Amino acid sequence: MNQTTFELFSVVIAVAAFAFAAWLYQWVKKQPSSNKKIAEVGGLIRSGAATFLKKEYTVLARFACVVAILILLFLPHPIWQGNAAENITMAVAYLAGTALSALAGKIGIEVATIANVKSAEAAKKGIKPAFLTGFRGGAVMGMAVVGASLLGVSLVMLITGNASAVLGFSFGASSLALFAKAGGGIFTKTADISADLVGKVELGIPEDDPRNPAVIADNVGDNVGDVAGMGADLFDSHVASLAAALVMAASLGGSNVNMVLCYAALGLLASIIGVAMARMGKNGDPSGALNNSTYTTTFVYIILTAIATAVFNFVWRIWFACIVGLLVGVIIGIATDYFTNDTKNPVRFVAKASKSGPAFTILSGMSYGMLSIFPAMVGIAVASLLAYKISEPLGPGYAMFGISMSAVGMLSIVGMIISNDAYGPIVDNARGLAEMGELGDDVLSITDDLDSAGNTVKAITKGFSIAAAGLTVIALLGAFMSEVNSAAAELGKTGIEGFDIINPLVFFGLIIGAAIPAIFSAMLMLGVDRNAQRMVAEIHRQFNEIEGLKEGKPGVKPEYDKCIEIATTGAIRELIPAGLMAILATIAVGIIGGVKAIGGFLGGNIISGLIFALFMSNSGGLWDNAKKYVEAGNEGGKGSDAHKAAVVGDTVGDPFKDTAGPSINTQITVVSLVASLMSALFLTISIF
Amino acid sequence: MNQTTFELFSVVIAVAAFAFAAWLYQWVKKQPSSNKKIAEVGGLIRSGAATFLKKEYTVLARFACVVAILILLFLPHPIWQGNAAENITMAVAYLAGTALSALAGKIGIEVATIANVKSAEAAKKGIKPAFLTGFRGGAVMGMAVVGASLLGVSLVMLITGNASAVLGFSFGASSLALFAKAGGGIFTKTADISADLVGKVELGIPEDDPRNPAVIADNVGDNVGDVAGMGADLFDSHVASLAAALVMAASLGGSNVNMVLCYAALGLLASIIGVAMARMGKNGDPSGALNNSTYTTTFVYIILTAIATAVFNFVWRIWFACIVGLLVGVIIGIATDYFTNDTKNPVRFVAKASKSGPAFTILSGMSYGMLSIFPAMVGIAVASLLAYKISEPLGPGYAMFGISMSAVGMLSIVGMIISNDAYGPIVDNARGLAEMGELGDDVLSITDDLDSAGNTVKAITKGFSIAAAGLTVIALLGAFMSEVNSAAAELGKTGIEGFDIINPLVFFGLIIGAAIPAIFSAMLMLGVDRNAQRMVAEIHRQFNEIEGLKEGKPGVKPEYDKCIEIATTGAIRELIPAGLMAILATIAVGIIGGVKAIGGFLGGNIISGLIFALFMSNSGGLWDNAKKYVEAGNEGGKGSDAHKAAVVGDTVGDPFKDTAGPSINTQITVVSLVASLMSALFLTISIF
Repeated sequence: MNQTTFELFSVVIAVAAFAFAAWLYQWVKKQPSSNKKIAEVGGLIRSGAATFLKKEYTVLARFACVVAILILLFLPHPIWQGNAAENITMAVAYLAGTALSALAGKIGIEVATIANVKSAEAAKKGIKPAFLTGFRGGAVMGMAVVGASLLGVSLVMLITGNASAVLGFSFGASSLALFAKAGGGIFTKTADISADLVGKVELGIPEDDPRNPAVIADNVGDNVGDVAGMGADLFDSHVASLAAALVMAASLGGSNVNMVLCYAALGLLASIIGVAMARMGKNGDPSGALNNSTYTTTFVYIILTAIATAVFNFVWRIWFACIVGLLVGVIIGIATDYFTNDTKNPVRFVAKASKSGPAFTILSGMSYGMLSIFPAMVGIAVASLLAYKISEPLGPGYAMFGISMSAVGMLSIVGMIISNDAYGPIVDNARGLAEMGELGDDVLSITDDLDSAGNTVKAITKGFSIAAAGLTVIALLGAFMSEVNSAAAELGKTGIEGFDIINPLVFFGLIIGAAIPAIFSAMLMLGVDRNAQRMVAEIHRQFNEIEGLKEGKPGVKPEYDKCIEIATTGAIRELIPAGLMAILATIAVGIIGGVKAIGGFLGGNIISGLIFALFMSNSGGLWDNAKKYVEAGNEGGKGSDAHKAAVVGDTVGDPFKDTAGPSINTQITVVSLVASLMSALFLTISIF
Repeated sequence: MNQTTFELFSVVIAVAAFAFAAWLYQWVKKQPSSNKKIAEVGGLIRSGAATFLKKEYTVLARFACVVAILILLFLPHPIWQGNAAENITMAVAYLAGTALSALAGKIGIEVATIANVKSAEAAKKGIKPAFLTGFRGGAVMGMAVVGASLLGVSLVMLITGNASAVLGFSFGASSLALFAKAGGGIFTKTADISADLVGKVELGIPEDDPRNPAVIADNVGDNVGDVAGMGADLFDSHVASLAAALVMAASLGGSNVNMVLCYAALGLLASIIGVAMARMGKNGDPSGALNNSTYTTTFVYIILTAIATAVFNFVWRIWFACIVGLLVGVIIGIATDYFTNDTKNPVRFVAKASKSGPAFTILSGMSYGMLSIFPAMVGIAVASLLAYKISEPLGPGYAMFGISMSAVGMLSIVGMIISNDAYGPIVDNARGLAEMGELGDDVLSITDDLDSAGNTVKAITKGFSIAAAGLTVIALLGAFMSEVNSAAAELGKTGIEGFDIINPLVFFGLIIGAAIPAIFSAMLMLGVDRNAQRMVAEIHRQFNEIEGLKEGKPGVKPEYDKCIEIATTGAIRELIPAGLMAILATIAVGIIGGVKAIGGFLGGNIISGLIFALFMSNSGGLWDNAKKYVEAGNEGGKGSDAHKAAVVGDTVGDPFKDTAGPSINTQITVVSLVASLMSALFLTISIF
């Protein structure tokens, strides 16, 4: 079978995923809903999320147009020197990447803000229907994201026949992910912190009190941060892993491109099967159901790819590399769970330390967060080493390709991972709605169970997604070298063989690249701080100016929109300098030290990015669960000094795990793609 | 002039430094002291510090013997394969390194615990004599440390004529530094936290209340952590920079070894001149006096080395590389000051954020701590790039040698730096003694001024010493490659040309190496936590069992010794796993991936070590000064909510800046030296 057949096969599977998503969406929509209060609040959340997305996509559209024009003018070669058609292809592929990512995010938000209401209602009938509603709502997002990724990549290949154009598509996906993840992260924490500061701390009103002008923004935040942001992030990683593998496969020739497409399509197929088979067992344990569907998907994927490898005569060594990545991903997820699960030692230690005051919550949480780096780093190191060594005997260039296939393998089940992850915010919202709709204690206890399973699974998927991004960007480093060498061949220059740490330019890049994730995180966190100050001022204004609001006079409502507006505008305003800093630093290093320095820069950026992403996500998750553990009545329970200290930990952890930590993934991908796309430029102009 | 002349010249300068130190010591000792209460407390601190050192050195002596036997058996080659004389030399050099470092530490503690008493007394006469006493006390440490370093290195060269033996000496210095810095760091924070938790928080008695069984341990901690620990750390860096430069100079031949020795000796001479000339100006500003003496030393060093270069026909390019390092070191120090000085924006922002609660103190402090990485990283990147490029035209091998000379340049004024740094804890102690001795408000205001200057200067010297360690270990990476290639030549194997990031073994090492500093820091911080729990239990026991202690009955004294004993034993017990982890990880990576993996491992370890060291030291310093800024009456002043939040920040920052942060320097040096020493072993046995 030829390449076109595989490309068409991928398109078919992608379309099937969309069809499945549409069916799931209709299924969720058909579930009953009757409670008026829930419908009202649900509607406010829904329209708030739409406001945010609209604003964000408007800014992004402008940004994308500017970048598309720059691409058109300069990439892969200045348009007056090279082939204009190539530049046009690249610019269009870029725009397609942003558009498909935006579409997937929009679909996810659309269904999540319906599924929350339906799941809350379903809980009245029992845990099984409530679980299924939440899970199928999340699965819409999972199917849409991976469907869009596979569809985009295979269409770009089908139309252009040029693997480098997939890099352009991938850059589009990344730049949207940067907005969605970092912007969404700033939004959600701005709202969360401001609502708590004025509501809980100053006025002493409860968590989801409708008098609080920021309460809807807070609920919207869960959706835009966790659903849209996380979807864009994994869309980005999935596309990038395929882009890196395709660039290398194309330069190796043979049936390699077919294999990449085939494995990717089978991954989506396995996820469809896994989602379709997901049911809660007789024991009524939602975590078990979520984990079982992940294991099912993994197992189905291994079988399907083995059959395909036998049937189409693909290379078995590459299959092994791919499976190594997948298994290591699962193991990293499980190891991450240890550090954030409240039945394990770290969370309990932090909860106990909280009795001595907040400083000890912070110190012990940070210490365990730092320790949690280890299993994931070792896993990534081992996966890349094994993949390399397994593939090396196949010939020159295959070793790095093996790593990229290992990343493809790790990300193959991402459709399932996203489904599990998007389930979390849906049932979290459902819990809040059940409380506001006064559905009673039995329903609340069901939604609590669902929510707690969501938190457990979230930690696992977070570890998994950071590891996957790590392996992907290692593959992108290989893709960068491929791009440099093909650009060098075209320009009649000598190519490069590698990036030697002893070379001062490489080392220069290594140091600067390693500093970037820290600076990027710091800028985002300071952004949350500044944005929260603006929002707190607005909340104060409303309480002062709107008569009867503080007293809860019937009919008096706060201006929820104003808060959403402030969080949105501020989020975009604060994220732009951080994103620009990362991109401009890449360009500056490239211009100072050329491609050698960029190689070092990417290496440093990847490893320090992994460290900070793991540290921040895991310690944030740990503090969150330590607080919940104390609230469940341990170490003094709610209202005790330990609880106050645990709340401080949780507040510190919030921007760690929801703003800075997960945005670093996107930062490293963006920087890697900028480097690959500008490789020809850095080859021609550089100071040293 | 031949090499022996330069070696003898270095020995002479080193001896001169010791003579000068002896004179300063006598001068400090001759200063009057009369207050009985001060003498009593001073005596307790003195004997407590001696207890700690004795215990630490006993454990260390055993440890050193074991390591010396291992060296004797295996390094540089297994004794049954190679030249037994070489192994004996290496083992003896190692022991000499530990012994001289211990000696310098002992001298420093000896004088610091006298100078604190004398300086408190001198404050009765005015700020000038008090300053001079504190400064000259610190200078004894500065002269002893650098004198011992230069003496050891030049004697090893004079006796063995073998630059590799200096690596053994350097490893001795490093393993002691690991004990002194990490052990002292755990000790000091254990005592500090426990004394505060029980004294201030539970019982509400004041800071230095003599009823508190941990109060003497707390004061001892300042000396063992800041004086002995910091001295061992900089002894380690100074020796390591010379070792790296000498290994490379020896393989390059020519007058290079002479130049290294000559520049090092002139650095010590410049420091002697700087210390001798230090006086407080008419304006009575102690910070100005400290900074001026640093600038004097820098200036004198530049002049002296330029003259030497002209007279002895050394290479001007190398001189430039050396001066680049020195100037960048000074600039990094100044940039670090920005992030920790209470007249600048970061400290004020954190103080203001504290009004919203401790979570915001932590978040904003961490954000600025992360931002503070940037200037130092850029400085190190630029210094190494410039040094490399300046030296590259001299021929193969010179480029890396240029970097090592840049590190030598940066560390040349370390005698002066240590003097300034050791001044800090002396005047800090003097302040405490003045309070306990009830010397009155005028004296306290003088000691406050001296103390505050100590804090400002400390931030600068800390940034300087981290940068110097960074540049040194980059040079050690070069030394490692030299060692590998000479071992390869002896073994008839092919050498290596570099460490390519694209090579999977190098990348494997890079990832694991980058994870180590985080794990190491986490282990130390958890160690402080566990140790503090033991000590709190002991304090409770004493308050319960010793009758009349709580009430302050005359004649009833707590058992200070028990607390010192617990802090000491615990510190050593907690530091051993962390140190072993770093060393065993190095050996494991070397055995798995051979010298290529080790190259990557060192690269990753250096950059992530720099990031964590800078982040932790600077955010710790920032929180400390933010607390002091609030205490000075800003943002609500003492007792306000902002103050409580700032105290939480300070408590988190304490183990950051005094335990984990500065120990990372030592960790990266130890690991680099282990790698260099075991290079022949990793060449012969490795799995991949």
